[in-house]
Amino acid sequence: MLISATAWLVGTRVPAAPAQAAPVRARDLGVPFDGTPGTLDAITDVKGVEVGFTTLISGEGKLVVGQGPVRTGVTAVLPRGKDSTDQVFAGWFTENGNGEMTGTTWVEETGFLEGPVMITNTHSVGVVRDAVIAWRVKQGQPADSEYWWSLPVVAETYDGFLNDVNGFHVKPEDAWHALDTARSGPVPEGNVGGGTGMVCYEFKGGTGTASRRLSAGEGGYTVGVLVQCNCGVRDLLRIAGVPVGREIPGNKVWSELRKPEGAPGDSSATARDAGSIIIVVATDAPLLPTQLKRLARRATLGLARTGTISGDGSGDIFIAFSTANPGAAKPTGIHHIDMLPNDQLDPLFEATVEATEEAIVNAMVGARTMTGINGDTAVALPHDKWREVLKKYNRLEH
Amino acid sequence: MLISATAWLVGTRVPAAPAQAAPVRARDLGVPFDGTPGTLDAITDVKGVEVGFTTLISGEGKLVVGQGPVRTGVTAVLPRGKDSTDQVFAGWFTENGNGEMTGTTWVEETGFLEGPVMITNTHSVGVVRDAVIAWRVKQGQPADSEYWWSLPVVAETYDGFLNDVNGFHVKPEDAWHALDTARSGPVPEGNVGGGTGMVCYEFKGGTGTASRRLSAGEGGYTVGVLVQCNCGVRDLLRIAGVPVGREIPGNKVWSELRKPEGAPGDSSATARDAGSIIIVVATDAPLLPTQLKRLARRATLGLARTGTISGDGSGDIFIAFSTANPGAAKPTGIHHIDMLPNDQLDPLFEATVEATEEAIVNAMVGARTMTGINGDTAVALPHDKWREVLKKYNRLEH
Amino acid sequence: MLISATAWLVGTRVPAAPAQAAPVRARDLGVPFDGTPGTLDAITDVKGVEVGFTTLISGEGKLVVGQGPVRTGVTAVLPRGKDSTDQVFAGWFTENGNGEMTGTTWVEETGFLEGPVMITNTHSVGVVRDAVIAWRVKQGQPADSEYWWSLPVVAETYDGFLNDVNGFHVKPEDAWHALDTARSGPVPEGNVGGGTGMVCYEFKGGTGTASRRLSAGEGGYTVGVLVQCNCGVRDLLRIAGVPVGREIPGNKVWSELRKPEGAPGDSSATARDAGSIIIVVATDAPLLPTQLKRLARRATLGLARTGTISGDGSGDIFIAFSTANPGAAKPTGIHHIDMLPNDQLDPLFEATVEATEEAIVNAMVGARTMTGINGDTAVALPHDKWREVLKKYNRLEH
Amino acid sequence: MLISATAWLVGTRVPAAPAQAAPVRARDLGVPFDGTPGTLDAITDVKGVEVGFTTLISGEGKLVVGQGPVRTGVTAVLPRGKDSTDQVFAGWFTENGNGEMTGTTWVEETGFLEGPVMITNTHSVGVVRDAVIAWRVKQGQPADSEYWWSLPVVAETYDGFLNDVNGFHVKPEDAWHALDTARSGPVPEGNVGGGTGMVCYEFKGGTGTASRRLSAGEGGYTVGVLVQCNCGVRDLLRIAGVPVGREIPGNKVWSELRKPEGAPGDSSATARDAGSIIIVVATDAPLLPTQLKRLARRATLGLARTGTISGDGSGDIFIAFSTANPGAAKPTGIHHIDMLPNDQLDPLFEATVEATEEAIVNAMVGARTMTGINGDTAVALPHDKWREVLKKYNRLEH
Repeated sequence: MLISATAWLVGTRVPAAPAQAAPVRARDLGVPFDGTPGTLDAITDVKGVEVGFTTLISGEGKLVVGQGPVRTGVTAVLPRGKDSTDQVFAGWFTENGNGEMTGTTWVEETGFLEGPVMITNTHSVGVVRDAVIAWRVKQGQPADSEYWWSLPVVAETYDGFLNDVNGFHVKPEDAWHALDTARSGPVPEGNVGGGTGMVCYEFKGGTGTASRRLSAGEGGYTVGVLVQCNCGVRDLLRIAGVPVGREIPGNKVWSELRKPEGAPGDSSATARDAGSIIIVVATDAPLLPTQLKRLARRATLGLARTGTISGDGSGDIFIAFSTANPGAAKPTGIHHIDMLPNDQLDPLFEATVEATEEAIVNAMVGARTMTGINGDTAVALPHDKWREVLKKYNRLEH
Repeated sequence: MLISATAWLVGTRVPAAPAQAAPVRARDLGVPFDGTPGTLDAITDVKGVEVGFTTLISGEGKLVVGQGPVRTGVTAVLPRGKDSTDQVFAGWFTENGNGEMTGTTWVEETGFLEGPVMITNTHSVGVVRDAVIAWRVKQGQPADSEYWWSLPVVAETYDGFLNDVNGFHVKPEDAWHALDTARSGPVPEGNVGGGTGMVCYEFKGGTGTASRRLSAGEGGYTVGVLVQCNCGVRDLLRIAGVPVGREIPGNKVWSELRKPEGAPGDSSATARDAGSIIIVVATDAPLLPTQLKRLARRATLGLARTGTISGDGSGDIFIAFSTANPGAAKPTGIHHIDMLPNDQLDPLFEATVEATEEAIVNAMVGARTMTGINGDTAVALPHDKWREVLKKYNRLEH
Repeated sequence: MLISATAWLVGTRVPAAPAQAAPVRARDLGVPFDGTPGTLDAITDVKGVEVGFTTLISGEGKLVVGQGPVRTGVTAVLPRGKDSTDQVFAGWFTENGNGEMTGTTWVEETGFLEGPVMITNTHSVGVVRDAVIAWRVKQGQPADSEYWWSLPVVAETYDGFLNDVNGFHVKPEDAWHALDTARSGPVPEGNVGGGTGMVCYEFKGGTGTASRRLSAGEGGYTVGVLVQCNCGVRDLLRIAGVPVGREIPGNKVWSELRKPEGAPGDSSATARDAGSIIIVVATDAPLLPTQLKRLARRATLGLARTGTISGDGSGDIFIAFSTANPGAAKPTGIHHIDMLPNDQLDPLFEATVEATEEAIVNAMVGARTMTGINGDTAVALPHDKWREVLKKYNRLEH
Repeated sequence: MLISATAWLVGTRVPAAPAQAAPVRARDLGVPFDGTPGTLDAITDVKGVEVGFTTLISGEGKLVVGQGPVRTGVTAVLPRGKDSTDQVFAGWFTENGNGEMTGTTWVEETGFLEGPVMITNTHSVGVVRDAVIAWRVKQGQPADSEYWWSLPVVAETYDGFLNDVNGFHVKPEDAWHALDTARSGPVPEGNVGGGTGMVCYEFKGGTGTASRRLSAGEGGYTVGVLVQCNCGVRDLLRIAGVPVGREIPGNKVWSELRKPEGAPGDSSATARDAGSIIIVVATDAPLLPTQLKRLARRATLGLARTGTISGDGSGDIFIAFSTANPGAAKPTGIHHIDMLPNDQLDPLFEATVEATEEAIVNAMVGARTMTGINGDTAVALPHDKWREVLKKYNRLEH
């Protein structure tokens, strides 16, 4: 079995496959989102931001640890494209910390993010982290001085439901491929990159993105969001405020697997929210690190609109950066920084909330049903059904 | 002019007035909330928790600083009733810190909350704070040792739209009255206590409460929430996921007042979210301080369901405490603490989210239109209209 | 009994008294501090910073709560002098949070400090807090808009060993006096202002200050520190690395009082560190809020040099601000902020550590023996003895 | 060139070598530390704690990236020995975050540490992190459920002065070796494990350890500390309060290398503190996560006693855990947790400060001069000289 993907998305070990159908996005199917999106409705609407993916899909059938099946990948978000030496101001926040985002101690201390934000599966964070350093070394970055170090930002969500996560199939080359092929332009969604094997609200999840553009009076800034969505239980799913999840009959096999540990026979037990979501917020608004932390914290509000209660097992970790103020991390001189007043942040907060909400729905709408280890299947959100539910609640546009 | 309140709610300087009509609650009017409430659907469903109010309403017409009109008050939440010596485990969180909650540095350090949580207006935090100490001194608390100090928890939201907030009308006696009259049982909502002069989503706001009871299989615990709601702009208001705010024509006078500072002539400016919300979460589940901080953080998710983006000017500050583990702060011996596993927290998280959402709606539904300084009026959410909107979206029960 | 102070220091209820002898400072007595102090070796070396005090000393003999004796006061540190509308960038940190500093949630959120930093006794934080607002109202600050609020920063340490702390002797007028009389120039130390009744390392403590000036090559910036020192147990006191405390015989009465609660008969119990220290760091270096938080965190390192282990009962809370970047909090436009690179911070870190260490020693060296409630006495560090100890360890200069 | 180490310490790629001379420790050479150490004066005095090392030393001469010379390694601290399934309560703190400790977001959220604390060089954090997961998988840990994930704690300091850090010489096997060979008993210090190539206060640094035992009246608990010390500039070094660093002539080559970036020609520039220190605090006292965070924060105070100002480039990151309360992380039931009152923490705070100070000095005293890449040499603290300085200041015991 092989689930195809476009060549652009494909990692080094994925055979060629028929091109995926044209992407489908939630907005196009009639979800009434608030606010004005950017041209692409993607994180790449923020000028300079590039996104790359390595998608690893191979094997089928019974899990043999180390042999597959493989349903995983790597996502790279590059704030200033391939230039990883000019740091960006950044801030981060964790709504629930059952997850990992390396490099955040350094972000918190200095207010800067150096290099890309990488996202992969839980057990491949390490290989990707060191691979980012190696990639920078290959670029010749320590040339000017041997006294150079790097503390990459690498985040994860868990794909062990579909993927041989303990087989460590992500290799340094996969991280490099995501970095090297990163580009601006439209961003594929669903089963791509780090999002390949993810599950969201007990439907197939993965990668999603969206953006908002502020009015000229508000400064004309852009906020872009990219999520790797793996969180939530079905009953809680809301789209445009409508309780979609509970109106679509459950995927029993999946729910069984997600019952609370230690209570296998307790039929009253609610499904656990053992997934995670990584949210990357980019903007070109000139914000200080303290202000970017505030943006990161708003991701919670956008996430909440989709219904989750941020379960105990969820790693809901967010990072926000600004592409403004190039050169702000140069080691000498007095820097002259542009800063938007706190009093002008509300439109950016609103944009972050809205784009986060839409990116999550896009991740689900863009995902395709996937079968992974042991034949287990994560079913994609059925488009006809959720649209029917929205219509029932008078919330479907068109 | 005098806006009446029941004797129970009345502060020392409010003349007797006709009893308020029977309270109206969102659930009774058909809002389809999730989960199972406790008996009273109030924070007092958590055994031992007592709530008291002082409501200060006097004067009308033009503002004369120091003379009124007065539309303010004090709310007291007592975790273990009048016993303020037996501390409770607690944790706190701030989604947006444009506000004050004193005592939190101490809560963060020790994991304990000693004495009540008080809520009043922004400019009366100090008088209430010292009054709590004086109240404890009057109770004879430093008797055993002269080496005794207190770091009370006092929070605030801003009522300067209706109240002479710079007139400092709250007095120590008002804090004592709220403490002395605190009791279990039903909790009044809307224009009472610290919530008296508050505005929420550009409608009249104030005090609200709700609770959830877990199933026996989940431990049978109770989570109760009390909010003092003063946040949000009308366009964002959602009830049960329905965009109620934008379907009810705006209160132009109010919106004008809330335009961004410095942009008085900019008609394109969006209204600022310059309010705040204080959320108090109580539970009888045996949780550690780290776990209670997690509960406090979930208040954001409940708040988000009502639509806010947590504006720059908003003080969205939350505290959670557990009435379990009495005696845990005794200074000697080894304490034997009950602790619920992290793996069992999801139902408590869900309860916190749901009760927070409902408490906010209750604050608005329970509030009455109020006219304050300079004849300015905050109009209550019109029950017929919001119910009509819910019906339009097929979300009204009954 | 009346302990005198200069007229400049005296609060409204302290009778005139003979002028204090010329101030004595640790450096003049031969303590070998590192680094180069500013002209005054005081926080007022940072241009624009003003400091004011109200010192309340009255009564003697047995404690009658509400009547005295009184040994307390208020300290005001004004970052930009009397102009409390132009906010400064700020950051804060707590090494041990058994204390209070109001307003910090707002500082953390926005990165700004608006108005003064006030320091008083533990049970007078509230009155001082509201008094700061009233003072600003008296200055006509809400004139342009009625939609105005204030969240003052007020910190405390506990003076209940010498002062009738539960008598609430600090009044709004005392806060106003400290604010109105604030000025640049030399800063009195020891038993003044909020530091009046404080005890440090079981000797008489109180207010202390110091500063450092960076070399031209390092930018020529100034770092000034002011402490209200009330922390530490005698055995741990170190001056210039020398274990001074254990070489000066103990004050038994005092140690008895500080034994662990609940263990009155346990003679093996070590004295508790139940005091606190507030540290205010000012600089004219152009630092962002994230960087100022880093400065605040360095106060711990300076404090540690004096020996404390930051006991459980200690409120060790620090705030740092920068007077650079005037106008940075204006609500509109894009601000152009000067920022020193992180790579250039080490000299500022070093200055903060050194000035903090010196300010603490200055607080003790400048303090005089004081008798307070019930005839209890806090003995000042005997100058001859500690100098003798430094000499024994070859660490006395001159 | 080959610097030898005992077989116990040797990684898989280090040839057999003559046994190291008997270890030398600071206490034995007359440093007058406070407090009472445990039997071994090591972190392994805390029952159950095991420590393992892999030391990688090979090659000499000019740096060829990927070929060496190699001066690095891995350190493993196992809270409950080889059992990595029974989590321990933990808390962490960062005094300066220019470094990495993975897994801390999870520690912060849950209050638990699962599995070992690993320490290696900056650019090998990733490989060690994933290797810990693989080691656990090899132990069969996901057997009961395929729904299992791990978020290992791996910290680092930078050894690029002596080691080919961009050559990525640490392999998964090196992490496994450190884990598999971990044991209780004496702990080697200096150039071992992750500490192999480290430099501290511009002398050769590395691994150090110490412990304190509380009196029976204080509970009889043990606090053990292990550091990987790579921080500080020579001028600031203090031992027992004595300014040792500035009295020992500098290592000019080294200082040149550590000049501020961007100011290569500025001879007035102070050396930068571009190192780091990882501090692991273990105790058997029954502490909650909130209390362990307080212990972790005390590491700063011990570190400060050795003189550092925690430079901008330093990653000063600390973690504390308690071996009490086995089984506290079981997913079901109500746990009965032992908890020491906050009022009893001061002796543990003091023990942490003292053991941290001693462990750092032990790391330096135990280290040997090492030559690494390009023939660069880090000279060990000369024992005769520092003892002479202590004697000069009357602080040498014996």
